[in-house]
Amino acid sequence: MIRPFNFSAGPANLPEEVLQQAAAEMLDWQGSGMSVMEMSHRGKEFVSIYEQAEADFRELMAVPPHFKVLFMQGGGLAENAIVPLNISRGGAADFVVTGAWSDKSKKEAGKYCDAQIAATSESTAFTSMPAPASWQVRSDASYVHVCTNETIHGVEFQEIPDLKALGSDAPLVLDFSSHVASRPVDWSRVGLAFGGAQKNLGPAGVTLVVVRDDLLGHALPICPSAFNYKIVADNDSMFNTPPTYAIYIAGLTFQWLKRQKAGETTGIAAMEKQNLVKAGLLYEAIDNSALYVNHVDKNCRSRMNVPFLLRDESRNEAFLAGAKDRGLLQLKGHKSVGGMRASIYNAMPLAGVQALIGFLKEFEQQHA
Amino acid sequence: MIRPFNFSAGPANLPEEVLQQAAAEMLDWQGSGMSVMEMSHRGKEFVSIYEQAEADFRELMAVPPHFKVLFMQGGGLAENAIVPLNISRGGAADFVVTGAWSDKSKKEAGKYCDAQIAATSESTAFTSMPAPASWQVRSDASYVHVCTNETIHGVEFQEIPDLKALGSDAPLVLDFSSHVASRPVDWSRVGLAFGGAQKNLGPAGVTLVVVRDDLLGHALPICPSAFNYKIVADNDSMFNTPPTYAIYIAGLTFQWLKRQKAGETTGIAAMEKQNLVKAGLLYEAIDNSALYVNHVDKNCRSRMNVPFLLRDESRNEAFLAGAKDRGLLQLKGHKSVGGMRASIYNAMPLAGVQALIGFLKEFEQQHA
Repeated sequence: MIRPFNFSAGPANLPEEVLQQAAAEMLDWQGSGMSVMEMSHRGKEFVSIYEQAEADFRELMAVPPHFKVLFMQGGGLAENAIVPLNISRGGAADFVVTGAWSDKSKKEAGKYCDAQIAATSESTAFTSMPAPASWQVRSDASYVHVCTNETIHGVEFQEIPDLKALGSDAPLVLDFSSHVASRPVDWSRVGLAFGGAQKNLGPAGVTLVVVRDDLLGHALPICPSAFNYKIVADNDSMFNTPPTYAIYIAGLTFQWLKRQKAGETTGIAAMEKQNLVKAGLLYEAIDNSALYVNHVDKNCRSRMNVPFLLRDESRNEAFLAGAKDRGLLQLKGHKSVGGMRASIYNAMPLAGVQALIGFLKEFEQQHA
Repeated sequence: MIRPFNFSAGPANLPEEVLQQAAAEMLDWQGSGMSVMEMSHRGKEFVSIYEQAEADFRELMAVPPHFKVLFMQGGGLAENAIVPLNISRGGAADFVVTGAWSDKSKKEAGKYCDAQIAATSESTAFTSMPAPASWQVRSDASYVHVCTNETIHGVEFQEIPDLKALGSDAPLVLDFSSHVASRPVDWSRVGLAFGGAQKNLGPAGVTLVVVRDDLLGHALPICPSAFNYKIVADNDSMFNTPPTYAIYIAGLTFQWLKRQKAGETTGIAAMEKQNLVKAGLLYEAIDNSALYVNHVDKNCRSRMNVPFLLRDESRNEAFLAGAKDRGLLQLKGHKSVGGMRASIYNAMPLAGVQALIGFLKEFEQQHA
């Protein structure tokens, strides 16, 4: 069987090696006689899976020891409430709004704290990035929130903002759901980062939270215990029963990431090289065409999510049908921006991007 | 391969047929070319899986049309906060405390409302059931909470309490995590029921909530949007990305439940018959022995979780080692009650219970 190429924005494609191993181990994980789904989360088998996954993620992402790595539930949308419940102390929180996701985060946080917009690119329809020097960060901000990759608008921070350079000591919160593990993170600039797994790390249903130790222990009294970072951390993410199978698949994905090589590099550095190649080729094909257009400023184009429009929108349905015929799936854009979107996460092979580019050219020639 | 029998309290054993189908479909669900993990939750493939799962659960459990079925995240421990956030209106809520789980529910609810104990069996070390006639239900209670099967203490309500007979119109809330789908539910007595899937329905990471329509729309303003029942219901459980793979496995389990037959009965009625036979045999073996003892009153013994002690506790380790040698796994009791616990959920075959009983007798004879 030749598997089609799946450009879904998430849940998204997973490495075939991961799926093959999961299938092979489904009824009997490494001689235990149990599926991973059937294991007590407190038994030695699952604890070993959990500990390996955490250690691999820490190694891959070079997470410093003064950060905790938590495996939670609810995804990014739940974290929009969980973050302010844990670290706002009911005070000020500032948001850089660069697309749909940071906008949602700001609105939800307003239930728990004085959430304000520090900067926004709404006036450009979220096709640009507000320069950090222009951000209005309050001196009493309990945190500053950025979405480092906007899945819908295709906008990505090309470096982690340096709040200290802006004169702020506030912890920076990253929503890195849709590009986690696609590039390194400079943790010296970060207080907390969260991401649903369903784009780059594994299946939907597990959320990674990386939180600096000093931010633990300040939750509002109304924070549900199951979402209190300190309680979760003190219980090694097993205060409530964790999503065990999703953690196992994420762990297999981490091992796949560790096996990546590109030139002299391995792991996330190698992954980043591959992602740069894939995104570079796809944007080049779009920019060089007369039919397709991507409106995002070149300095903040996402390597993961490439939205593009057909200049003749009457051809959208024909485009999607032709793509599907060639095994290029789930290319329809988000309803709020229309057109097309190719999500090319870590697990998308170069061959998938090449096949898409081939079809872009073929379709344009047919309809010239 | 002969699979061992896994008596874990949860996550717990799953039907072998379910695991086999999941393994076979891992890389290509029904010709789609995608794993279920890789599907967009809004695509037609996953929507069909979701709709089938919901319809099958409704049919199996005879859920009336004026109840919504929600697929959420966070498990029972998260629901301990989510329920009062949604339906307490910050007022009074009464709890019948029959073991560790209802005790946790009461304590967590106290963050959001005036949570009080309506009745408790703590004085009997949770080996009995407070008679409903003795419950102190307040006239202004926004809801009354019961845990209909206490996983740790092995205590089960043998019928759903009738609050109307007690003169109360308050909605009854069931935590039925550890016996959902093991027996029918009389929904005419219920306002809301919730359960983590990881005992009887599927893998950890998805929580079923069945909620009567009139209880929607009354959430406290501080309720996180992702856990607001009305928002979840209005979005067909897709306000945030749902735990798609866990829902798929739960759906396969529902189909397995629908295939159950016992005499003239099918589905849950057939499952209940099998569960009565399994539990009856195991309790009989314990009661007829001189070595093993279960202290729970016979009128409220759990069909799902059978805790028992060895009268000579110095033999606990030898018992567990011998059991493991015979492929009888995860029989150690919860640390708070000690001894052993055999969880015999729907997916535990009669042969597993028979094998356990054989070992109980063998071990007792060896150590007489």
